[in-house]
Amino acid sequence: MSYNVLALVGSLRATSMHRVLFVAARELAPAGLAVSEFAGLGKLPLYNGDLDVEPRPESVEALASAMRAAQGILLVSPEYNYSIPGVLKNALDWMSRGGPLAPLRGKPVAIMGGSSGISGGMRMQYHLRQSLVFTDNPVLGQPEVILPRIQERIVDGRLADESTRALVAKQLVAFETWIGRFVTSP
Amino acid sequence: MSYNVLALVGSLRATSMHRVLFVAARELAPAGLAVSEFAGLGKLPLYNGDLDVEPRPESVEALASAMRAAQGILLVSPEYNYSIPGVLKNALDWMSRGGPLAPLRGKPVAIMGGSSGISGGMRMQYHLRQSLVFTDNPVLGQPEVILPRIQERIVDGRLADESTRALVAKQLVAFETWIGRFVTSP
Amino acid sequence: MSYNVLALVGSLRATSMHRVLFVAARELAPAGLAVSEFAGLGKLPLYNGDLDVEPRPESVEALASAMRAAQGILLVSPEYNYSIPGVLKNALDWMSRGGPLAPLRGKPVAIMGGSSGISGGMRMQYHLRQSLVFTDNPVLGQPEVILPRIQERIVDGRLADESTRALVAKQLVAFETWIGRFVTSP
Amino acid sequence: MSYNVLALVGSLRATSMHRVLFVAARELAPAGLAVSEFAGLGKLPLYNGDLDVEPRPESVEALASAMRAAQGILLVSPEYNYSIPGVLKNALDWMSRGGPLAPLRGKPVAIMGGSSGISGGMRMQYHLRQSLVFTDNPVLGQPEVILPRIQERIVDGRLADESTRALVAKQLVAFETWIGRFVTSP
Repeated sequence: MSYNVLALVGSLRATSMHRVLFVAARELAPAGLAVSEFAGLGKLPLYNGDLDVEPRPESVEALASAMRAAQGILLVSPEYNYSIPGVLKNALDWMSRGGPLAPLRGKPVAIMGGSSGISGGMRMQYHLRQSLVFTDNPVLGQPEVILPRIQERIVDGRLADESTRALVAKQLVAFETWIGRFVTSP
Repeated sequence: MSYNVLALVGSLRATSMHRVLFVAARELAPAGLAVSEFAGLGKLPLYNGDLDVEPRPESVEALASAMRAAQGILLVSPEYNYSIPGVLKNALDWMSRGGPLAPLRGKPVAIMGGSSGISGGMRMQYHLRQSLVFTDNPVLGQPEVILPRIQERIVDGRLADESTRALVAKQLVAFETWIGRFVTSP
Repeated sequence: MSYNVLALVGSLRATSMHRVLFVAARELAPAGLAVSEFAGLGKLPLYNGDLDVEPRPESVEALASAMRAAQGILLVSPEYNYSIPGVLKNALDWMSRGGPLAPLRGKPVAIMGGSSGISGGMRMQYHLRQSLVFTDNPVLGQPEVILPRIQERIVDGRLADESTRALVAKQLVAFETWIGRFVTSP
Repeated sequence: MSYNVLALVGSLRATSMHRVLFVAARELAPAGLAVSEFAGLGKLPLYNGDLDVEPRPESVEALASAMRAAQGILLVSPEYNYSIPGVLKNALDWMSRGGPLAPLRGKPVAIMGGSSGISGGMRMQYHLRQSLVFTDNPVLGQPEVILPRIQERIVDGRLADESTRALVAKQLVAFETWIGRFVTSP
């Protein structure tokens, strides 16, 4: 059995290090995980309850469809101001709406990220974990992928550091098992 | 001496209860605080490092100017998914950039908010407090303004509940003293 | 199949409202959960690395044995200073030691608590959730049991409020399913 | 004017690296700060509301007296399970009692700590900051003292790393200014 995993990258920069990290995750995923990115986070409008009515903005519906087709969600994100980037939080705000039918609701989640400094972006990750209690998402515990000085792990636009690659691979193997705990076999 | 306080409202809905709360705060502020809202949070682009170069988007510069002209910041916000709304976080992400010259840096902050349920939005407030450590903002401690079932406190588009009004007024008096601890008299 | 659930109560007071809550949880648990309390948290020494060697204090070994015999952990606790009571955190500090062999490690957890004020003790619960990432505990998401003005729900030393009892019962049914996701059948 | 600063060390081990950090802080403090440790955290009973009546345990009264005589509090602590050590939280639980007369209430606070791993113990620090909102403590923002791989900074029982010593000294200079914002001159 293979699971679709939808990845959201919390940075919009064209040369984002977190997109490099996502690309590595896609390469390193075990055979049972098909990881793809939803690349349109930057097109979502800022959440506004007045827009949250039928018909919803096209970009919102596109993300909702992609999320509904996934069995797991992979959040790959930098930390902004010791917390979740507004761009990523905005996407989650849209996807959390709809009560029991919200696209995000209940999907298993894994988180990875880094920072150019010493924190490795971990402060962002614990805020994400709290936020995802609202939508009842089981979030993978260990191993955490927290990467201080992420820029030193990247060479020529590729995640080059072998121990980092091994950690990413290890998390994704654990994530496959994790998804399996929540997805009922057909 | 009078202080300019810039208010940011974390909800974009036209009939937002948090705008009602802001209006009450503006009315109830002591004579030494002139509270005004920056009403353009919804016009900011999602933060993108590639846009964070001269010349910055006009909406970003407008917020930066307003923030630089203020001696204090009042954040009036709902809670989305147990955390900061993306729309508010996005504004803070923009304003935190610039290192020692960031518009947000070091400004005294007060926070108020509520929720339609039992939490009163408090989970949002502690995330905000952590986030504001990055920009070295002294955030007022007590009294906190956390308002469960905020809709029951509003009648005909006005914050009507007297004990809530008294709490808002009390926080703003404390905020005036708080700003005075950090602003050097001319 | 039946699961043993070990409950820890974060308050030491003889007439603690959280012990009342625990007693209700024990009564309301589904047939598949056998809930019992470890009543000796107050006898544990404050954690000290110098004492964390063989032979460990008797009270520590007693808790470790009880925890090893359980398939799930139920944390029933008040909030002290917007966070985890020292008495409960101290017990978790002891039980988290031992690396992969730590008694706490990996056990499914559910959390319930309340407060005499409006917070319902929720700030404590999110700190607990972060703490339990270290020991890789899957913590039940929804439904959360967060009980503002818990004293009004108790009559004559018994959890009397019917909607509260229904919520506690609902959480424990969800907890049984949750444990089943992580425990391999024999 | 000189301020008394009471330091609490969150580890009880005889050879605790955080006591080494405290000793360095005492040495490096500016002339206006007299830093001393309350060394009896390990003697405090676990907080129990039934003991929180006159006459309180002697160890509790000793800490309360020391705290009342201080104009600032320095918390020097490791991180246990991604949060505040039970031993430190227990001390704060005792000192937070008493409403407006609580010994901890309103005192300016600075925090420093490290870890043997990559986190530098930062997760502990943000939990502390949230906890101290309850007692209305203004907590120094920047610079934060977060020390990954603290063991590599210590040689022969002394904080030897020069950049770490400079950071500690810088924080204490900022703390002196910070205390001055809240203490009224006689």
